[in-house]
Amino acid sequence: MDIRDQALQCRAAAQVLAQLSSEAKAALLDAMADALDSDAAAILAANALDLAAAEAKGTGSAMLDRLALNPARLSGISAALREVAALPDPVGSITRDDVRPNGIRVQKVRVPLGVIAMIYEARPNVTADAAALCIKAGNGVILRGGSEAIHSNTAIAASLKRALRAAGVPDAALTLVEDLRRETMLTLLQLNDLIDLAIPRGGEGLIRFVAEHARVPVIKHYKGVCHLYVDRAADPAKALALLVDGKCSRPSACNSLETLLVHAEVAATFLPQAEAALRERGVEVRADARARQWLPQATPATEDDFAAEYLDLIIAVRVVDDLEQALSHIQQYSSDHTEVIVTEDPAAAQRFISALRAAVVMVNASSRFSDGGELGLGAEIGISTTRLHAYGPMGLEALTVERFVVQGSGQTRAP
Amino acid sequence: MDIRDQALQCRAAAQVLAQLSSEAKAALLDAMADALDSDAAAILAANALDLAAAEAKGTGSAMLDRLALNPARLSGISAALREVAALPDPVGSITRDDVRPNGIRVQKVRVPLGVIAMIYEARPNVTADAAALCIKAGNGVILRGGSEAIHSNTAIAASLKRALRAAGVPDAALTLVEDLRRETMLTLLQLNDLIDLAIPRGGEGLIRFVAEHARVPVIKHYKGVCHLYVDRAADPAKALALLVDGKCSRPSACNSLETLLVHAEVAATFLPQAEAALRERGVEVRADARARQWLPQATPATEDDFAAEYLDLIIAVRVVDDLEQALSHIQQYSSDHTEVIVTEDPAAAQRFISALRAAVVMVNASSRFSDGGELGLGAEIGISTTRLHAYGPMGLEALTVERFVVQGSGQTRAP
Repeated sequence: MDIRDQALQCRAAAQVLAQLSSEAKAALLDAMADALDSDAAAILAANALDLAAAEAKGTGSAMLDRLALNPARLSGISAALREVAALPDPVGSITRDDVRPNGIRVQKVRVPLGVIAMIYEARPNVTADAAALCIKAGNGVILRGGSEAIHSNTAIAASLKRALRAAGVPDAALTLVEDLRRETMLTLLQLNDLIDLAIPRGGEGLIRFVAEHARVPVIKHYKGVCHLYVDRAADPAKALALLVDGKCSRPSACNSLETLLVHAEVAATFLPQAEAALRERGVEVRADARARQWLPQATPATEDDFAAEYLDLIIAVRVVDDLEQALSHIQQYSSDHTEVIVTEDPAAAQRFISALRAAVVMVNASSRFSDGGELGLGAEIGISTTRLHAYGPMGLEALTVERFVVQGSGQTRAP
Repeated sequence: MDIRDQALQCRAAAQVLAQLSSEAKAALLDAMADALDSDAAAILAANALDLAAAEAKGTGSAMLDRLALNPARLSGISAALREVAALPDPVGSITRDDVRPNGIRVQKVRVPLGVIAMIYEARPNVTADAAALCIKAGNGVILRGGSEAIHSNTAIAASLKRALRAAGVPDAALTLVEDLRRETMLTLLQLNDLIDLAIPRGGEGLIRFVAEHARVPVIKHYKGVCHLYVDRAADPAKALALLVDGKCSRPSACNSLETLLVHAEVAATFLPQAEAALRERGVEVRADARARQWLPQATPATEDDFAAEYLDLIIAVRVVDDLEQALSHIQQYSSDHTEVIVTEDPAAAQRFISALRAAVVMVNASSRFSDGGELGLGAEIGISTTRLHAYGPMGLEALTVERFVVQGSGQTRAP
């Protein structure tokens, strides 16, 4: 069956999903989790095939680790599905309800988007996580994973599809694309009469490819070049803790810090402490000339360093005259993802918040909280730095849209 | 200056707009209305040039009427600006505010989208209306109108820009594209690093051109093929009133009715009354064979009639076995714009609402209420049948997006 026919079937199945009650969807997601548990052996066997192929290709250890499943990781995946099952259902929630002077009642009601295409790489858990979130919000989902995980993804999808059929939902509601040719993905991304949203997750290359070729709406973020600005009025202990947490707790995450900006008046006291704490954790420091006065061991930072998303134990450091210079630096290099100020001065905090257009702006909190779970969305389907529909971490609500329901008693517009 | 430089300047100016208080924006919009009033003579003179050129080209009277301004229409435009000035400002409204277990405070706050490109035809009032809504929501706006209205649009824009400068806002916040070459519009639609949203308004051809070539997000609707379904349990008097209002009160509007579906059990009584009322108003009736039993004078309806957006005094009529057949007809031909059921049966109404994915679903109310003003949005920038960001009539809120503001006291993610 070609990709258009698959999308047509997914769309038809999505209409069935859209009619399910919140209870039915919660039960379905629990059943999907049970199916993964009971199919664990088959899924791990399939994953072994992917790992063997990857090793044969000489794949690096980081990539192998992202690809690898084991009983513990698999239980983690089914546990995550049960958490999604337990989340409140955004569908049907009424976000506006008022009666117009002519007596018509106007409600805005959340409905599913329809069919969502996920384009992703490596981690097989995305197959289950993304499917769970899309289905919980009443959407059909088309999953196009990477070739490196094809056996794992196929086994996980087969397991989840079994649960869909058992619930009386056409299993095309979850469609795994097994034809991984690039031209097939291009066709998929052109189906704007059948697909309501594409969400690419993976390396910047994949995301740019999707954004460049899609004729369907795309929500994405390219990268996170997150800044920590230590203000003149910063509490040094907080600043140090936020720096270490933001850079070291998970350097490969997009919400990790890449650049440290320090107000000139506190550079002399803060930078040496910062360098000690960072070196202790193996972080390479690249600093501008002014910062190197207090960071003798730092390597010089180039223009590229301030634009870089290292995703590694490296940080760029710059000393700024004041808040305004910090803001213009951030405005120049920001990826609109997450920006943090450390200050005890409410006026500085307010200025920082209002001057920056980033999706997430933080005062005295770690950039690592820029995550759907941490911000209370329950789970995260992705992050948007596109200033439309959703901006920042996206949870279930971002997989729905509000539409109008109007109830009258025969009112006409013309008198 | 080329279009990219114009967009860059508009983006910089938008950052100034985004910082304005609600009071300042309201005052600015009132000043823009005053400017239009005081420049009325110049604007009407410019409009006369457009009208002369259009007449010389042998433009049709309907188009000439859309293009024409006069003192009354111009005061209508400035009055509309004052109404927008008085609307509540969506920017800064807090849509979520809670404290996480770790003590961080998470708020979602509405911010402007950034820069909005309006692509439109004919009516010069769009130049003022769209600019007012975009600016009220704190956005920069790039206006690309049609060549037929270039003199009128230039005069209106010059007047509005004067008010922007007087308020200390760089007048690039309102940028009128005077280079109307198609390749320049193509370049504009590719500027996805500078433009946050494009809204095309006009004929289906223009909208398809924008959707096909844009690399920036586009919100649009192609057409409105709105259905009125008269259920078995319909109140015949309401049905007749909603039919006449929906078809005849403004046939050229996208929220007018194009197709009437009638339950077989009421066809014999309803159709003759309907035909009499429609003929009295000069409406041509095109009906399927079954309906023609009761509509002897009707012309046969073809497949094309049920897909057509007539925008004229013509209506397609079909008799259906029951609600389910009506729903499948609508699902096949719907433009996802507005669908109406007439029934006194709550179960039928609920089934109609939940089975259809249209942006606006109405029970016993006229399709002509599918309009931002009528639904209480205050004003309308456009209508979306794209199931993302906004779905249905779009007001000021649809010109903003929610972002996250997080305030902590030094919380880190790692223990």
